[in-house]
Amino acid sequence: MTNLQLTSTITANNTLELAIRDIAMPEPGDTQVVIDMQACPINPSDLGVLFGLADMSTARQSGSADRPVITADVPAKFISALKARVGKSLPVGNEGAGTVIATGASAAAKSLMGKTVAVIGGGTYRRYLCADVRSCLEMPSGTTATAAASSFVNPLTALAMVETMRAEGHQALVHTAAASNLGQMLNRICIADGIDLVNIVRKPAQETLLRDMGAKYIVNSSVESFHADLTAALVATGATIAFDAIGGGKMASDILTCMEAAASRNMTEYSVYGSDTYKQVYIYGALDRGAITLNRSFGFAWGVNGFLLFNALGKLGAQTTHAMRQRIAAEINTTFASHYTHEVTLAEALHLDNMARYAKQATGEKFLIKPSRA
Amino acid sequence: MTNLQLTSTITANNTLELAIRDIAMPEPGDTQVVIDMQACPINPSDLGVLFGLADMSTARQSGSADRPVITADVPAKFISALKARVGKSLPVGNEGAGTVIATGASAAAKSLMGKTVAVIGGGTYRRYLCADVRSCLEMPSGTTATAAASSFVNPLTALAMVETMRAEGHQALVHTAAASNLGQMLNRICIADGIDLVNIVRKPAQETLLRDMGAKYIVNSSVESFHADLTAALVATGATIAFDAIGGGKMASDILTCMEAAASRNMTEYSVYGSDTYKQVYIYGALDRGAITLNRSFGFAWGVNGFLLFNALGKLGAQTTHAMRQRIAAEINTTFASHYTHEVTLAEALHLDNMARYAKQATGEKFLIKPSRA
Repeated sequence: MTNLQLTSTITANNTLELAIRDIAMPEPGDTQVVIDMQACPINPSDLGVLFGLADMSTARQSGSADRPVITADVPAKFISALKARVGKSLPVGNEGAGTVIATGASAAAKSLMGKTVAVIGGGTYRRYLCADVRSCLEMPSGTTATAAASSFVNPLTALAMVETMRAEGHQALVHTAAASNLGQMLNRICIADGIDLVNIVRKPAQETLLRDMGAKYIVNSSVESFHADLTAALVATGATIAFDAIGGGKMASDILTCMEAAASRNMTEYSVYGSDTYKQVYIYGALDRGAITLNRSFGFAWGVNGFLLFNALGKLGAQTTHAMRQRIAAEINTTFASHYTHEVTLAEALHLDNMARYAKQATGEKFLIKPSRA
Repeated sequence: MTNLQLTSTITANNTLELAIRDIAMPEPGDTQVVIDMQACPINPSDLGVLFGLADMSTARQSGSADRPVITADVPAKFISALKARVGKSLPVGNEGAGTVIATGASAAAKSLMGKTVAVIGGGTYRRYLCADVRSCLEMPSGTTATAAASSFVNPLTALAMVETMRAEGHQALVHTAAASNLGQMLNRICIADGIDLVNIVRKPAQETLLRDMGAKYIVNSSVESFHADLTAALVATGATIAFDAIGGGKMASDILTCMEAAASRNMTEYSVYGSDTYKQVYIYGALDRGAITLNRSFGFAWGVNGFLLFNALGKLGAQTTHAMRQRIAAEINTTFASHYTHEVTLAEALHLDNMARYAKQATGEKFLIKPSRA
């Protein structure tokens, strides 16, 4: 059997090179399984490794339709940030799902034989992936690989947001780019768990989508009344923590400013330091790679932090993480259902027209790679 | 006996009014003492209450030399932020020291009779201040009120920085505006406790001042090699937490960027999320009231938070705070010594020429109000 892998390499002459490479068929160790990969999402978090800060407007396609090769220029200013990966062929793909076709000798590995599993890490954009059983999540019988493909990144992130909110003593939360795949999951979790969620979106169609899902608090950042609308939603919910997918620009500052306005609405004592309500924004994405601007009109009780899933899970602990994984498996077709607008083979994932499309990270568009397809 | 108090009022017609007012001589409750106030510093943190966002370039002086009245215009855009204080006469002054001249009936209060105490809170810019014994710190016999005047704000803040560094698992720290009164205390603490401190200053004279004190790591942010110098100091010290007095502009971003450069210096594995070294900047001042700009060239493991002394002490706990207070009293003439360049009476504190001077918050200039002087 042949095995294939999608790799991303930055060469010494500042060129990004993406290719489908032949690799050896893996032999599982004791606690490992070999998975016939059938479905892998292209998440925003995969694009960083895939594109490696290359200027994709310079991308050229060569090779054959079955074995395409993409090359693109990497701007010289980014090379120092990328130096640890120059000359290395990096596997791509953070998650996916498939069927276990071989296992190691351990009982844990053997118990997965023939099962549909979701898997995290290791470069999932390949035909056959060897993974430790701890990186696998067994799906309920009858679950398709397509349904299981996005079992980790978005579901765990959405659950980690809710658990972080609880652990840090907040009672409601704010989410931006809220109509995203992740945002929809977060809405389903919050509705099921009775948590107030303030959804910030940019377009009327996204408002409609969320309202139709049952979302109660939806604010459009593109309208003139954004600050007033957001403040009203913060007063109504008491939300003092936000998870922001955008990062660059004024969004974090706007959220903190409106939280402060909501918190100080009933203050009778003046304080030069602002309210003593602690206000937190976690930035978990980089839809806008520009600088973050904080206007400081929100006193001294505030924090803006980067939010990285595995650090957040580390803080929440193994028991909470285990419970999250079990919930995800049990609710993969409901709470954690993902919707894909495009399905491509490994080779088609490196066709320029598809790349231009998934590079946009447009809300509502999501690609699924099907490595087991010819 | 007459009592006097410096007050700051914002009137309904957008005017700031500063005055020296006659107030009643206080009667101490059981756990209270009356302090004959002899020395109160003008700290940057006093200026917020004093000036109330008024445009001090419009300040006019009226009244007499003994009873000056200052009026200034408050820009309309700030009025909503100030609404909780409009029409209220606020007492000014966060700390000071003097002699206890009357006490309540409790043993704790009585034990302070005739002693020199430092006091925190309550509007210390007055002739006689009534304070709870818990707000007082008894000074070693022979300590002058001038020596004790700045026993809380700067000493506790400097100690809270060091304890926060320890509590959050960092091994060395960075400080900006590092030649300030607070910065000098922090240097003495760090030298005594064997902690590496990276001092960021703006001027060669400040470098000299700190070097003469024994500071080992001093970086000038005005020179072209600032980033390289700071990164080298961060590599040498392993500092991953900073306390920034400036706030606005790029300083926090620069510090995080250099911390990331230091952390990733020996990384062999590339990660699109940056290093997993957590990098923290606490912003405790507002020397630059402009927006904070974060360039996000430092991965996802970072935090920028407001730092407010009393919140920090709350986190550190009562036992740590008690130990800090005892250390401050014991070392008030050494580690926690303050230096004043100007001494003024209560009335002179409201003379326009003095106000223009202390409003600048220039490093090296510090005013002391002596309320007990005629």
